[in-house]
Amino acid sequence: MKCVRCRDDAWVEVRRHNASYCGDHFIQFFHDQVRRAISHDKMFSKSDQILVAVSGGKDSLALWDVLLEEGYDADGLYIDLGIGDYSSRSRDYSEQFAAAHGRTLHISDMQQSFGVSVPLIAEQTRRAPCSGCGLAKRYLFNREAAERGYAVVATGHNLDDEAATLLGNVLHWQTGYLARQAPVLEAEDAGLVRKVKPLYRLSEHETAAYAVIRGIEYVVEECPNAVGAKSILHKEALNLLEQASPGTKQAFLLGFLDKARAQFAANDPHELRPCIECEQPTTTERCAFCRLIAETRDPKPRVARRYGKTRRGGDRRKIRAGDTATAGAVTAGVGEAEPPNSDDSPSPV
Amino acid sequence: MKCVRCRDDAWVEVRRHNASYCGDHFIQFFHDQVRRAISHDKMFSKSDQILVAVSGGKDSLALWDVLLEEGYDADGLYIDLGIGDYSSRSRDYSEQFAAAHGRTLHISDMQQSFGVSVPLIAEQTRRAPCSGCGLAKRYLFNREAAERGYAVVATGHNLDDEAATLLGNVLHWQTGYLARQAPVLEAEDAGLVRKVKPLYRLSEHETAAYAVIRGIEYVVEECPNAVGAKSILHKEALNLLEQASPGTKQAFLLGFLDKARAQFAANDPHELRPCIECEQPTTTERCAFCRLIAETRDPKPRVARRYGKTRRGGDRRKIRAGDTATAGAVTAGVGEAEPPNSDDSPSPV
Repeated sequence: MKCVRCRDDAWVEVRRHNASYCGDHFIQFFHDQVRRAISHDKMFSKSDQILVAVSGGKDSLALWDVLLEEGYDADGLYIDLGIGDYSSRSRDYSEQFAAAHGRTLHISDMQQSFGVSVPLIAEQTRRAPCSGCGLAKRYLFNREAAERGYAVVATGHNLDDEAATLLGNVLHWQTGYLARQAPVLEAEDAGLVRKVKPLYRLSEHETAAYAVIRGIEYVVEECPNAVGAKSILHKEALNLLEQASPGTKQAFLLGFLDKARAQFAANDPHELRPCIECEQPTTTERCAFCRLIAETRDPKPRVARRYGKTRRGGDRRKIRAGDTATAGAVTAGVGEAEPPNSDDSPSPV
Repeated sequence: MKCVRCRDDAWVEVRRHNASYCGDHFIQFFHDQVRRAISHDKMFSKSDQILVAVSGGKDSLALWDVLLEEGYDADGLYIDLGIGDYSSRSRDYSEQFAAAHGRTLHISDMQQSFGVSVPLIAEQTRRAPCSGCGLAKRYLFNREAAERGYAVVATGHNLDDEAATLLGNVLHWQTGYLARQAPVLEAEDAGLVRKVKPLYRLSEHETAAYAVIRGIEYVVEECPNAVGAKSILHKEALNLLEQASPGTKQAFLLGFLDKARAQFAANDPHELRPCIECEQPTTTERCAFCRLIAETRDPKPRVARRYGKTRRGGDRRKIRAGDTATAGAVTAGVGEAEPPNSDDSPSPV
């Protein structure tokens, strides 16, 4: 395999583009794709202050790196979710990157600020951990960015993440989520910050290759909560299709953005107002994050399983759904204005 | 495993309904689902004359059987596509069923009527065989039904077929096909006959179980052209998701019909007029079937591959696409009013 640019030995194959690249030309390809995303979707300019949502993983650190290399003014925000060793290691990698590049890394510690962690939220509310985690991150990214005066929050969602989310949304025809799945979510309200995904044209494999070639150290292991998550299954199904027909994921995502999203967006009216507790914008009286924190501190009484059991299991299922109905309500606002990448799946930042 | 109705040994498991059935109660379940489809989608009544599109396979013969058992006035139409032994065996099974039930089976023989067969169409037009085959069947089902005075054409598309088609349409955001994928396609024009799919709530496994339990003999092997077809890959991906989460296919299809299809249909205006050759309704001057037959009889000159080859294979691909552009144009009309179940995939009737 030879580099399509210089005919040197190729390091990375990009099958959907029918191309292979040597290290240097792959980095150039990567930059080209990011530049293309930024300009095609009018994400931000050199004068904007950007806050990168940093998890310590390959995607967010590759994103931060490429933005700095391109000359953007980009700081980082790390949210400590309290997921044991995994959180400490992720934080270390994030801090190392910030120090090596002489940039500011803001830290938001859920335990310190709210007295809760992701494992505690999952335990107390009996939601899938990724669900509470995603909601908390979306809320905190926005709030921290708004309070610190950043114009835009950039997240490391890549093509695989976005295609898997889209598949999940389409399998259940989550029309509200479909309306709001986009590489750019405008700040509809004074309290909302614009969200952008500059890596949405690059695959997971490519962000990993970029990080490796650039010598970026990142936390390699998956979040321990990700085991069995729906998004992993959706990625598996898409990989099967991509294998047989390279370019499937890209055509799926870009085709949606080009031809279908507007139809869903036109049918998704929603009005924002300040949360009565935290004053962040929301579609409901109290925002989903405040409800989540309240429920974690004061969990609903558990319904004993045996009353719900029937021969065919029908009622048992109903009780499970009822347990989480309030916290799981679909709303739009802070932590909600963008759809979750998948309600029970790990999100990459 | 016990039958959920009578606690006898179960023969068939229906995981998406969290149920298992003995033979008798499975047949009852099958009838219930067909009755539900017919009434929910207002497909037809006991006074309508129905033409069942019969292929000799499990789906179409199960459909014909259940409609007769339910007391509907249903004849069959078999289209001889000229696919060697496969076509002869399919025809035999169809004729045996018709004779055993004392019903009329109309035969439409492509070789006799048009001097072409599916293999010849594929060879001459260099389209995937399933593409020309699907188009020809849709055209002939409608034309034969209209000319013979039937009110409605019923096809054996099951839940797996419909979900796989939907996935294919969604992966490429074929908005025109999405607008027209439905269990009932109304006759928009005098020359069009209503199309219905009474098995769309039943899985492939269930139609096979029904045929076996009812003692229906059918052609078991797949069409030899189906090897490598996209719909098989799409079914594989959906099976992966269904395995992890039973009910995924049903939620995907029914959710689409319930929540999303109307949005695509609203953006799909098209006007029908008679084909200048066969006078069947079409959106183009000459209908897709007449163009297909013409192209088969008088193929376009082949572009030598070597001129199209480039180092990266880009132009080669373009030439392939150009070759079939005319015959592959997306139009709506006879053989076109309903979207193909997948353009390069076997269709079950």
